[in-house]
Formats: sequence, C-alpha cells, structure tokens
Amino acid sequence: MSKRVLIIGGVAGGASTAARVRRIDEFAEIIMFEKGPFVSFSNCALPFHLSGVVAEADDLVLMSPEVFHKQYNITAKVNHEVIAIHPEEKKITVKNVLTGETMDEEYDELVLSPGANPILPKSIKGIGSDHVFTVRNVPDIDAIKHYIDDNNIKDVAVVGAGFIGIEVAENLQMAGKNVTIIEAANQVMAPFDYDMAQILHKEIIDNDVDLVLEDGVKEIFSDKVVLESGKEIPAKAVIMAIGVTPELTLAKSAGLEIGETGGIKVNHHYLTSKPHIYAVGDVIETTHFITQKPTRLTLAGPAQRQARAAADHMYGKTYRNTGVIGSSVIQCFGMNAASTGLNEKDCQREGIAYQTAYVIPKDRVGLMPNAKPLFFKLIFADPSGQILGAQAMGQGNVDKRIDVIAAMIMNHANIEDLKELELSYSPMFGTAKDVVNMAALVAMNVLNGEYKQVPVTKIRELVEKDAFIIDAREPNEYAEGHIVNAVSIPFSEFRQRLDEIPTNRPVYVHCLSSQRSYNMVKALQAHGFDNVYNLMGSFLGLCMYEYFNDQQTGRKPIVTNYRFDLL
Amino acid sequence: MSKRVLIIGGVAGGASTAARVRRIDEFAEIIMFEKGPFVSFSNCALPFHLSGVVAEADDLVLMSPEVFHKQYNITAKVNHEVIAIHPEEKKITVKNVLTGETMDEEYDELVLSPGANPILPKSIKGIGSDHVFTVRNVPDIDAIKHYIDDNNIKDVAVVGAGFIGIEVAENLQMAGKNVTIIEAANQVMAPFDYDMAQILHKEIIDNDVDLVLEDGVKEIFSDKVVLESGKEIPAKAVIMAIGVTPELTLAKSAGLEIGETGGIKVNHHYLTSKPHIYAVGDVIETTHFITQKPTRLTLAGPAQRQARAAADHMYGKTYRNTGVIGSSVIQCFGMNAASTGLNEKDCQREGIAYQTAYVIPKDRVGLMPNAKPLFFKLIFADPSGQILGAQAMGQGNVDKRIDVIAAMIMNHANIEDLKELELSYSPMFGTAKDVVNMAALVAMNVLNGEYKQVPVTKIRELVEKDAFIIDAREPNEYAEGHIVNAVSIPFSEFRQRLDEIPTNRPVYVHCLSSQRSYNMVKALQAHGFDNVYNLMGSFLGLCMYEYFNDQQTGRKPIVTNYRFDLL
Repeated sequence: MSKRVLIIGGVAGGASTAARVRRIDEFAEIIMFEKGPFVSFSNCALPFHLSGVVAEADDLVLMSPEVFHKQYNITAKVNHEVIAIHPEEKKITVKNVLTGETMDEEYDELVLSPGANPILPKSIKGIGSDHVFTVRNVPDIDAIKHYIDDNNIKDVAVVGAGFIGIEVAENLQMAGKNVTIIEAANQVMAPFDYDMAQILHKEIIDNDVDLVLEDGVKEIFSDKVVLESGKEIPAKAVIMAIGVTPELTLAKSAGLEIGETGGIKVNHHYLTSKPHIYAVGDVIETTHFITQKPTRLTLAGPAQRQARAAADHMYGKTYRNTGVIGSSVIQCFGMNAASTGLNEKDCQREGIAYQTAYVIPKDRVGLMPNAKPLFFKLIFADPSGQILGAQAMGQGNVDKRIDVIAAMIMNHANIEDLKELELSYSPMFGTAKDVVNMAALVAMNVLNGEYKQVPVTKIRELVEKDAFIIDAREPNEYAEGHIVNAVSIPFSEFRQRLDEIPTNRPVYVHCLSSQRSYNMVKALQAHGFDNVYNLMGSFLGLCMYEYFNDQQTGRKPIVTNYRFDLL
Repeated sequence: MSKRVLIIGGVAGGASTAARVRRIDEFAEIIMFEKGPFVSFSNCALPFHLSGVVAEADDLVLMSPEVFHKQYNITAKVNHEVIAIHPEEKKITVKNVLTGETMDEEYDELVLSPGANPILPKSIKGIGSDHVFTVRNVPDIDAIKHYIDDNNIKDVAVVGAGFIGIEVAENLQMAGKNVTIIEAANQVMAPFDYDMAQILHKEIIDNDVDLVLEDGVKEIFSDKVVLESGKEIPAKAVIMAIGVTPELTLAKSAGLEIGETGGIKVNHHYLTSKPHIYAVGDVIETTHFITQKPTRLTLAGPAQRQARAAADHMYGKTYRNTGVIGSSVIQCFGMNAASTGLNEKDCQREGIAYQTAYVIPKDRVGLMPNAKPLFFKLIFADPSGQILGAQAMGQGNVDKRIDVIAAMIMNHANIEDLKELELSYSPMFGTAKDVVNMAALVAMNVLNGEYKQVPVTKIRELVEKDAFIIDAREPNEYAEGHIVNAVSIPFSEFRQRLDEIPTNRPVYVHCLSSQRSYNMVKALQAHGFDNVYNLMGSFLGLCMYEYFNDQQTGRKPIVTNYRFDLL
C-alpha cells in the first residue's frame, strides 16, 4: 500500500519534498498544506518586485496548485493552516483559513517545512502600524508595492541590513525612493567581516541610500522613525528585515525537541524527535560542515537538499548528510558580494586558529575591457592550512571564485591544493593565475612564515603612530593619492635606496594591490630588514576600507586622495 | 655564493620562473634570453588586437626589459637567441640576432621555456607566401593587422578551429572581414565532444563566419585557398592555426630526452634528463591528473605553476606535482564555452568506462532578466561515479560551473559529492539547485540505473526509424515547433492518457530541457512501462545539435521549427 505523505508548508522545502516523493513513489498520496494563498513561490526573488525587475507579483509564483496537481498529482491546499499535530495518532488538524472549517488528516509520513517568521520586536513602539511591513511571501511584497505606489511614498526606512534588507533597499532605490537602512550592528551583511563590509558600505552610500549603523529603532511614527540615538529618519513606510526566527508553534505543541540554536532538532535523515515526522528548511537546526556544531541557516539550496534527503529516507534510501557551509551571494548595486564558510568573526567565536590572505588582483587580464579589481579574502586554519572560508567583492565574477572555494572546503582541501588548482582561463574570463590561486600563494607564504602582514584594519593606527610606511608604487601613482605620511620608495628604485629605510623600527610596505609590495617585502628581508610588513589590501584596499567611516564621521582621511577611479 | 640562473624564453614560463627565482633569492643573477623583440607579452590576448579590443599591439606587452631590470633586477635580453646548450660545461651559446654576434654564458641553473611553433605543413603549396601568417607573438599579430589594414583586405581564411583559430576568426569578423574557418576535423574546439561543438558551429555561422569542416588546405593562391575537396575559398590573407609543436631544436641538440608525446621529458620537479636543466611550458610533456599518462597541454596556467615549481626546486623546495586536467574557456561570439578534464573522446581512447549527464537548465532564476539556458554535460566514471570532466556552453557564467567541476576533479570527488555541493545562490546569479547539482542528480540516477537515456546524437536515427517519441511539453509549446513524428502527451496529462502509450516497443520521452521528461520517465516506469528512455538534451538540445548540419547539407530537419527564440 502506498504512503500518505502530508507536508506542512509549500515553498522551497515543502514543494521540493513533495516533488521528490512523487519521483520515488508514483502512487503515494501527497498533500501539501500552505496557510498562505500561494505555494512554490520564489522567496529569494521577492525584493526584485519592488523595482519592477520582476514586473508582476504573480511572476514570483513558480507553480500553481493546478499545475502541481496536473503534473505531479500532488494536492496543494493553499489557505489551509495546520493548527495541530497529533503524533501518537499520526494525524494533523487543518483549518481552512477562508471558511474557518477544520478537519483531521492522517499521515504515514509528515514533513514540517513552515519556514521562519520575520522578527518584529514588541519593544519598538508603533511596530504594529499599517505602514510597517515584512518580506516573507508574495502577499507581503505585493502589499509593500501597492502601499508605496498608491500613497506615492518617497521616504522609506529599511530596518536590518542582511540579504533581504539590502535587496529591498536597492530595489526601492531603483524605484526612485529615498531609502535609509538602519542596522544595529556595526556593519551590513553578517556573513562578511567588518573590513569587507566597508566596501559594501561605500557602495550603498555611493548609490544615495543612507546607511545608519550601530543604532536601533525606538519608535515608529507615521512619517518618521526615531532611533535609540535620538536620530530621526523620515519614513512613511518601514520595512522590517532584522532577521527571522523559526516558526515553532506547531513543533512545540507537538512536543518536538528544539535544538540549542532554536530550530527543530533533526537527525541525520531530517527526522525530528518523533517518528515519521520530518522537518526541513528554515525551521530546523542543522550542522555546520566545518565546526560540526549545530547552526541555523535560512538559505534555499540547503532546504532543497534537506527536502530530498527526507523524502529519500521515507523510502529507505540513505543519505550522506554533509551539513552546511553557508555559501551566499548578493548583488548590492554595482558590487557583487559572495562568501562561503567561516569568516574571521566565526573563527574567533569558535576558537579556531586562523590566518587570512587578502588580495586585490584584476578579475580578468588587465588589458581586456572591463577588467576590474576583485577584493578577495581567504581564511585558512593555522597551522593546518585547511581552507575555512572566503569573501569576495567586485564588479565582476565573484560568485565563481566563491563557488570554487566552497568546493574546496567541502572536499577538506588545503591552501596547497588551492595553489595548484587548474581553472579555466582565457583573458576575457580570468587570469592565468586566478585570484584564488594568488590568495593561496599568499596564504602559503603567511603560513610558512615567509613574510609578515598587517591587516587593513590596523593601518590607520600605524599612520597615527607615525609608523614608517613605504609606498612602493611609482611616483606618478603616489602623486595622485597616497597615505598621508607614507614615504615614496618605488619598487623600481628600492635597491638603490636601501639606506633610506630604517633598520631600527618596523617598516611597512604597500603598493596598489600588494603585488609589488609583496615582492619588495621579500627582497627587503633578504637585504637584512627583518622587521618588514606588507600592508594587506595596499592602497586600493585601504581606500575602500576607510572611505565610509571618513564620510560618516567627517574625520580627516589618512589618504591624500581616494583612488576610486581605479575601480 | 648566489646562483646564476639563465632562462631561455621570456613569455609565460620563462618570465614566471625569473620572477619566482628573484623572490626566493634576492641575490641570484637572472638572465632571460628571448629571440623575439618582446618579453612577457600576453600571448593569450594576441587575437584581440585584430578587432581593436586591444587597441595597440604594444598594450599586449605586459612588462618591458627595463621594468624587469628596475623592479626585479632581472636582465631580459631580447633579440637574443640561444643557439646551443653545453650541458657538460654548464654553458649556453647565445646569438644577438640583430648583430649576429655570439657569446657563451655559464649557468648554475638553466630553464628552457622556448614554447611551441605553429605547424605549417610543407605539403600545402603556397604555405610560404607573404600573405600566410601564424599567431605566436606580438610581431606576428602586428604583421597580420598591418597587412590586412594596409591592403584593405576583406576575405580572410583561418585554417584550424582551436582556441587561436576561433578567436582570430571572431576578432576579424568583428573588424568587418569576411572570414572562413577551415578545419580538418569534423568539429571545432577539440576539448569539446561533437555534440557540444555543434552549439559552437551554430554560433559561428549565425555570426556570418563560414565554417568548412572535414576539409584541408591543398594550395594557397594569392586570392584564394583551394581545399582538398576542390572547394575554393576566397582569401587574400591566410592565418594558419592548426596547432603547435614543441620547439625542440635546442633540446634535441643538447641531448635532452624527449617524451613519447613529443615534448621534453621532465621529472617531478620539471628537471630534464640533464642535471641543472629545467623545462617548463608548452615545450614539455606533462602528466594528466586523471589518466596519469604523459600528455601535452599548451595553456598559460599550468606553465606558470611549472615555472614556480622549477624555481622552487633550484632552492631545495619540494613541490606536489599534481599534473594537469586541461581546464579552458573561450568566448565564441555570444556563446561562452568552457571545459575541464576528460571528454567522451578521451575516455573512449583511454578505455575508461564512463557515463554522461546532459542538462540544460537556466543559468539563473528563470524570472530574472537575462536568465539563459546553460548547456552542461558531465562525464563521470562507471561504476565509481568519479567525476572525469565537464563541458558547458551558454551566454552566461559557464566558467563558474566548469571551475567548480575542475575543483571537484582535482579533489577526486564523486558525483555524490557534487550533488551535495553547497554553492552561493541568489536569483541574479544562479538557482538554488545549481546546474552542477542538477547534473549530479541526473548522473546519480543514471549510475543507479533508475532511468535510461538516449544521447542527443541518436535522436535523428530514432526519428528515421519512426520510434515512439513522446513530447511531454504543453500543447502550445508543441505547436510552436516539435520533432516531426513526436506524439504530444503533455506531462500535465499523461496519467489520463497512459493507454495511448505502447507497451510493446521502446518509448522515448522529451520536453524542452528534460526536467519534465525526467519526472515523466520515472512515473511511466512506475506505471509498468519498462522500456522508457529520456531523450538527453530534449527539444532545446536537439535543435542546437541538428541545426548546423541541417544548414550545411540542406537536409530535411527532424523538427518542424527550431526554437532558438528560447535561447
């Protein structure tokens, strides 16, 4: 006899489970319950409706209940909310939200994929107002678009600067709105470290979006938002995107075990603590591939894999549960930003000893059109050299580099493997030694103690202490903008000017992107300078790192001129 | 005492060795001899000068001898040809090609990086004419450009359709020339299998370049090229790009061992058969990562890694010689094409049992602007599932997918690892289940015998035999173009129309890109149809595969209408 499979939630996790069950078992009875009016919509694409990139809200719906039925023989019951699970009886209680009618449904296997809810802190006064929105589903985004269009609203506040916050802000800006992003942390986009996030900060303010960091919303008025600092932000619509929390109502009432991170605890096969009840997607606690510790990750790719694994397990198929590494990419105006694995903050929190390599080569051969700097940071374990994570930003193909690193991480690869990695090359697409290979070479040198480096975050301190900083670029480059008290000793002249370099104090060297300074540091060591450091990121990295805070605080820049013309 | 390192050849391999030696040994004496007038030019970018994408020939030169000297303290002697090696005396004889003067130079370490010569078969009459060119260096490309411009030439023949031939043809076409490509094989671009190459064939003729396959040049006249077939091609300039052969003159006269593939034989450290003589780059025989057999590969990335390894070994640093996999990418008009590892032809030649998966999903979420089909073929070992190679073509980010596969291959990964690979996703950059994940899922099904498939190369035969082919797309899609004798049984209706499907003969199913047909094949099997096949590539793949030969031969297409509007 074929199974009766009931699925709670009809988006990424739910719909994927349903389709996979059907492929395994043509005769299973599959019913998917979704409390909203749509199943199978592209939640990741929701923000793009605000700019019209996705013209119609309906376009966001990938498959209707009718098509589910006709193609997959799957019953998708929209506007049906599951209000109780009865594990002992293998039953659920479902309420038709339009009629109020309730009914019980028996299952052989039950899958929970209810997702996560946007966080709406009750402590914020006015949070319940009609002009305060969240972005979770098609009706949400439709409501925002209509509200803004119908009321001809110009000023919008976006609270929270994660994926959704940034994408909403960008699409609203593209629609001609005055947008302010308010973020409680000291940076946007938590997957990135602070140094890399500065590049996004610059991109955001360069695109006329106001960015307020380290401040929270205290009260929402009809025409403004008042922050904890007392600052007032004009806003006739407010989008709350400070994060999500797993939708646990059903799970808790059914007595399912909840993990330490606040998601439903599942085993290797995505089975919850109760037999025949699976859970997948944003609602669960999963395991991190590197740390092997519980984590939560609200991304579509892992949800789809979890869905497949759960369906497989219902039919006795085993599964290699690799856990998650957290790979993601976002377009932030003209800047693409991708990351994978652990960042520095993660390593510090986990107590993992690590080092970093930061390189800023061109993303393709320099003489090709559209060759652009690619800001790339590699994080690797010390002393093993195991690759732990990477962050990449640039106008070009950053996702390629991050996906390669993701593949290396999931194969437990080392920086030595990365150095030897043979990637596809032609001048239009990359460089013979790709960005990732270069990062590995720097990483090998760092790990082998062949040279020392100072992170971009520490350069201001060095300048303020009047450290001896050598600018290894050519004089014409120096003239167009340099670190305020850097000494110009070009890489092309240093061997004749060694006597200008002190031996009794640390010497710091930079160039534009660290290629020349790297060579110069190595050479200076050979010439007996044993306290030489490369400035990571060099001048280009420094400009990107410093700019936003210079603009925000009005402080005196430590460069005589930003060289953003080189971007 | 510091070493005296002499380097023969000043492009990718030579210049990289020199720079690496300098980084290791600030006090080494490094002299690089180059018989041409330039060192360190971007040979991979040469073709782009023909269209003006690289405006000046000088732009192709990355570093002058002066800069080598000033920055790296490396002596780069251009116009200096090494005419003899005396291994016993650790000496070379060098001729200044401008003055004719010769001199002997002693070495501690010698590096051969003379590259490879374009093949110019003497059997072709007229091959020595002034209007016959090759593309090896800056003077070559400069000569072509001047000859064509100065003589206002319109008709150009490009002989050979590898990387250089295709890029030269494309850039000449962009410059407004009438270009004919003549290739002796039955396809362009040997790294691709015939089925994938058809996509490039279409792209080439769609861009008004004539393409003659399976024909050779018999005689070159001043205004035409006469082919073996008797066909005449108007051409007042001829670019020969049929391949290269290692420059072995010096190596042979010095008694260096030559490998079975015709390159200089080197050991793990790129040492030749004589002590203190290294060889790197296009001149050597290297080892294939997968087959572990000798091979030759004329690509810049491996050359740079070999250079580094050779330099390291001079200073006692060991190196993990991984061998090569052959990753490459090319832009062919609007189509990007990348590949890595072994193709089907390679596997057949090597006697490696393999299977393939062919998927054509969109390269990003379908509702995003510029979502385009990505043609992706994965080759994996049977029965191990080890990933052997991949080929990708499309208007979008094919290099990303190929680089991921390259990383998987070099980590000895399996299709099961690929299935679980967590890549960066957002709707602008990909799909939650990336192309490579999808290919792995199909591959797993094939390997597990969960369904059977027929390659796109066999569909014409099926049509001609009047096989039972089901078109699983919707009726409106069928109406706009379909396989001539396919029966329309949409995926959305098949469960009600099972009685229309025969049980006494094989049944072949396709849709647009195999997603629906895959589901339908699985379902039909469950309904007792045990002789059901999926048509790999489905309708889109078929159109791409058939079009070029249809056009060339004037044969009757097996589709009622090509659907290139869906590209």
